[in-house]
Amino acid sequence: MKILVSIFALGILLPATLVASEPRAHIDDISVEFVTAFNTGDGAALARLYSEDATLFPPGAERVDGRSAIQKFWQGAMDAGMKLDELGATEVISRGDIAGEMGRFVLSVPGDSGVNKVIGEYIVIWKRDGHTWQLHRDIWNTK
Amino acid sequence: MKILVSIFALGILLPATLVASEPRAHIDDISVEFVTAFNTGDGAALARLYSEDATLFPPGAERVDGRSAIQKFWQGAMDAGMKLDELGATEVISRGDIAGEMGRFVLSVPGDSGVNKVIGEYIVIWKRDGHTWQLHRDIWNTK
Repeated sequence: MKILVSIFALGILLPATLVASEPRAHIDDISVEFVTAFNTGDGAALARLYSEDATLFPPGAERVDGRSAIQKFWQGAMDAGMKLDELGATEVISRGDIAGEMGRFVLSVPGDSGVNKVIGEYIVIWKRDGHTWQLHRDIWNTK
Repeated sequence: MKILVSIFALGILLPATLVASEPRAHIDDISVEFVTAFNTGDGAALARLYSEDATLFPPGAERVDGRSAIQKFWQGAMDAGMKLDELGATEVISRGDIAGEMGRFVLSVPGDSGVNKVIGEYIVIWKRDGHTWQLHRDIWNTK
């Protein structure tokens, strides 16, 4: 009886836990990959984290549509010597195969008088493709 | 028999149509209310379109948490004479009680040498509260 109760308890608790933690854990892991790809200047690895039909909405520039245009955009930032000191979610709201991530970043931008630290915030709409979560819509601004 | 077929066809088609169009139609309507409230300087009406625990992520400023702080923030923009020429969705992705809206706006900002037209883009995470959709997380930037 004790065993049966335990199995029932697991049966009730496990799915709820998985549903709640799964997208957030994936998104946190992919954000670490994002920082690594960015700081090693690997535009192809960075672009693979986005969906094929992803869109960036960068401040001060036109929207960037599609994975290959996104690779080119980020390669430009990396070639200019920018580095991500920090990047990560402050909140994730998910339903099914869609998640909205609110996050914060600190970017080092080399300038004429040394490196400027730029603090910014973002919202990313993530989409699950099979077992993989991908950045699908990405907008940010800076303080 | 003809009637039966029609009823079945309605039974199949109606729910799909409702699910697909419902959040987008609400969001489009509320965006019209947003512009009206903004352009008449009605901060209270504007704030009521946000959830009680909504957050703004404005460019060049700290995040703004909660409906009453949001009212104050927008009242400042309205009191500075800003007007929305355009605001609306370019895409809505929704699952259940959550929707991600990608949108575009044109803002008239009075300056020393006349009115500047500022073009921007945004992502809003909407949340359904009963039958009402509310702006829940709101970030934007400008070109």
